[in-house]
Amino acid sequence: MTYCVGLLLDQGIVLLSDTRTNAGLDNISIYRKMFTFSNDGERVIAIMTAGSLSVTQTTLARLTEATEEDDPDETRSILHAPSMLKVAQIIGATLADVTTDVSIKLSRMNQSATASLIVAGQRRGGPMRMFLIYPEGNFIEATRDTPFLQIGEHKYGKPILDRVITPETSLEDAEKAVLLSMDSTLRSNLSVGMPLDLVVIEKDSFRISRQRRIEAEDERFAQLSRAWSDALRDAYQKIESL
Amino acid sequence: MTYCVGLLLDQGIVLLSDTRTNAGLDNISIYRKMFTFSNDGERVIAIMTAGSLSVTQTTLARLTEATEEDDPDETRSILHAPSMLKVAQIIGATLADVTTDVSIKLSRMNQSATASLIVAGQRRGGPMRMFLIYPEGNFIEATRDTPFLQIGEHKYGKPILDRVITPETSLEDAEKAVLLSMDSTLRSNLSVGMPLDLVVIEKDSFRISRQRRIEAEDERFAQLSRAWSDALRDAYQKIESL
Repeated sequence: MTYCVGLLLDQGIVLLSDTRTNAGLDNISIYRKMFTFSNDGERVIAIMTAGSLSVTQTTLARLTEATEEDDPDETRSILHAPSMLKVAQIIGATLADVTTDVSIKLSRMNQSATASLIVAGQRRGGPMRMFLIYPEGNFIEATRDTPFLQIGEHKYGKPILDRVITPETSLEDAEKAVLLSMDSTLRSNLSVGMPLDLVVIEKDSFRISRQRRIEAEDERFAQLSRAWSDALRDAYQKIESL
Repeated sequence: MTYCVGLLLDQGIVLLSDTRTNAGLDNISIYRKMFTFSNDGERVIAIMTAGSLSVTQTTLARLTEATEEDDPDETRSILHAPSMLKVAQIIGATLADVTTDVSIKLSRMNQSATASLIVAGQRRGGPMRMFLIYPEGNFIEATRDTPFLQIGEHKYGKPILDRVITPETSLEDAEKAVLLSMDSTLRSNLSVGMPLDLVVIEKDSFRISRQRRIEAEDERFAQLSRAWSDALRDAYQKIESL
């Protein structure tokens, strides 16, 4: 499995993904699930992936190919589409096509493969937007009422987000919140694993503002994790029983 | 869905269940999922249920019937079985039988129905034991390494248990922990709902030590919930960002 979370806030977009993929429990690998596309100063798009690696890799390969054509087609290149909504539609259509292709092959073995994506970004002249794209290619969008989207193993890390995230949350606090949400997931579910990829896109910057990989041995993440554990235990001790 | 959690601790057993059942989203009802059987001073057994109501009600009815026979059969009555392991075997076999009966009916409609149970208790002369019984009737047992078992919507409430529960946890702290675990689940998942049923069985008491229903309007639970939210937000604010 996977855990990816995206926040759409007044000040910008914060995205975090893990990197664990597994085919069964005895075949665990590290694959990037965070992909960025940008035309700095004009447009920035980030895509996070969950689900079958064969589907997500082929989808990303097709999307990338379309952006690199000599005469890019704005109905196929996400770097040239006229709006973020069109970007989501292109990605949704590509995902649906790939899913269909792969499923035809797999149906002979009575197997299936699906994937979900989170797509976030902004183009000059438009607002920041963030979408969750379903395997069938349809999608939903983050709003002020629901400023975060999750794919993969989303349940462990949802309570902290439900409690602390609002559209007004600062980018710094938001980074902390997604890391703590991930930390809860890492502790409780083996199928989500380090390293992590963190991306921040500040509003109206039209570029990746910060991007970093947090490795398994990252001492500051380990400190954050310990501090959160200690703080939770303290909080728990202080609460009076019923 | 449902959320039920059971802790097997050095000082005793703590069990908490919600009461929401739903057939679709437009048909929500309250049904008890916590059932106790006891022969005070000799034996106490608690069963929590998750899954299809038709399966769990029929299973409980058959188990109850077997305990009320004039000449109870120790291979069928959980109040007369010679050990907690035998109790788990009787319950597992009953659940598997009921599941098979119901599934034969439902298979004509291409539907299926399953249920899982948590069974905990102690008989005089034996240790406290707690089992998670799968729809097929097989089961696993809580141990010192893994002193809690969950059924239903278990993911939201797992991180807090992973962090604070050890076999040495006091019964008072354990009550608090299961209530906070439930609180996180209630907030993040509509299919889990108030009221709650809490049962505590102290070690070597061979009776239900405390049993209470916590209603939706319970002011002390609301306070606990608010205090935990505040404590979590405080803890979150205090943590330094990466």
